Amino acid sequence: MNDNEYPMNTDSIDEKWSDGEREILRATYRAMVEHGYSSLSISKIADELGKTKASVYYHYDSKEELLVSFLDFVVDRFKSDLAEERTEPPDTALENVIERLVPLELDDERFHGQVVLLELRSQTSRNEAFRDRFTEINELLVGIVRDIVERGIETGTFRDVEAARVAEHIVATVNGARIDRVSTDRGAAPAAVRVSLSSYIDSELRKRE
Amino acid sequence: MNDNEYPMNTDSIDEKWSDGEREILRATYRAMVEHGYSSLSISKIADELGKTKASVYYHYDSKEELLVSFLDFVVDRFKSDLAEERTEPPDTALENVIERLVPLELDDERFHGQVVLLELRSQTSRNEAFRDRFTEINELLVGIVRDIVERGIETGTFRDVEAARVAEHIVATVNGARIDRVSTDRGAAPAAVRVSLSSYIDSELRKRE
Repeated sequence: MNDNEYPMNTDSIDEKWSDGEREILRATYRAMVEHGYSSLSISKIADELGKTKASVYYHYDSKEELLVSFLDFVVDRFKSDLAEERTEPPDTALENVIERLVPLELDDERFHGQVVLLELRSQTSRNEAFRDRFTEINELLVGIVRDIVERGIETGTFRDVEAARVAEHIVATVNGARIDRVSTDRGAAPAAVRVSLSSYIDSELRKRE
Repeated sequence: MNDNEYPMNTDSIDEKWSDGEREILRATYRAMVEHGYSSLSISKIADELGKTKASVYYHYDSKEELLVSFLDFVVDRFKSDLAEERTEPPDTALENVIERLVPLELDDERFHGQVVLLELRSQTSRNEAFRDRFTEINELLVGIVRDIVERGIETGTFRDVEAARVAEHIVATVNGARIDRVSTDRGAAPAAVRVSLSSYIDSELRKRE
């Protein structure tokens, strides 16, 4: 994986992450892809990094702390990835957000990124800090969709619906499709959901002529 | 947990599971709730069972084989849980399926059951047999919803929609809401999705007056 591939393209993310931290988070991602959460250790992350365990412990006290930081990075990544949709026309913006979250074609990097997220999500009942981050991710996605819907209502593109409810629906559908895709062999399902989401947006949001 | 609680109420499931197997699967479920997938072992399952490791190995060669059997049991459980909806009127049947999958109130047993499923689902990229079972679960759910929608079209309750596409949409939304519920602190989200699903069914499926 080179530095410009998902989910580790950090160019557009603000300067709150030092180079050292970014390097460790990239190594963490690679170690998660290779070994999975159960077998992950600071030692394996240090191996991926090509440095000593001490150089990881210099930044993070534990594997858990490192993974919380990894999830904070993912939150920032979602924010920067979806930020530009705030200026597109509302109908285009909504389509683009859905395409980014459930692309018709999922490359290997994104596939692995979603598998890593699913593994960390599965630990939320045992780890409150992980749970906080997944709450934040879902709140973020619902907020982005809700803002687009509200903007569409204000500009007259969309009907006067309850934006929060429609946003919850779209994000639940998107999350279900994302998780189905990486955990089953139902290859055609994401495309079917994309078509049905377009139809949902049409019938729920578009103004009748 | 007593024997009549979810997901281990086996009364309605056919006789293909021996009493010995059922006992072990119940113990596996309890051990998963307590220790999680990463720390699960035959030894811990035997402890829950109150028997020796040998008595588990008599039925199952490995932890993985046991967990595949556990997932087969879950598939049967979904089938028996949702079977009765095949005879209800289509609109009631659809509401009931959604209520069973995303109940407005989720008791502790069902919560833990869904957490266990999420943990096993997160292992699908490393375990093909797990992946096969989650493919089967999603195919099963989509098939049940699709059959209800088709029945509704035949009986004139629903409009002449593409049943498979609507079923994919409903199951994706349901799965997204289920996973959101057990992995975040977004308490109000399932109720919002339930309302939006009713609205979706109304606008997509119900005949216009």
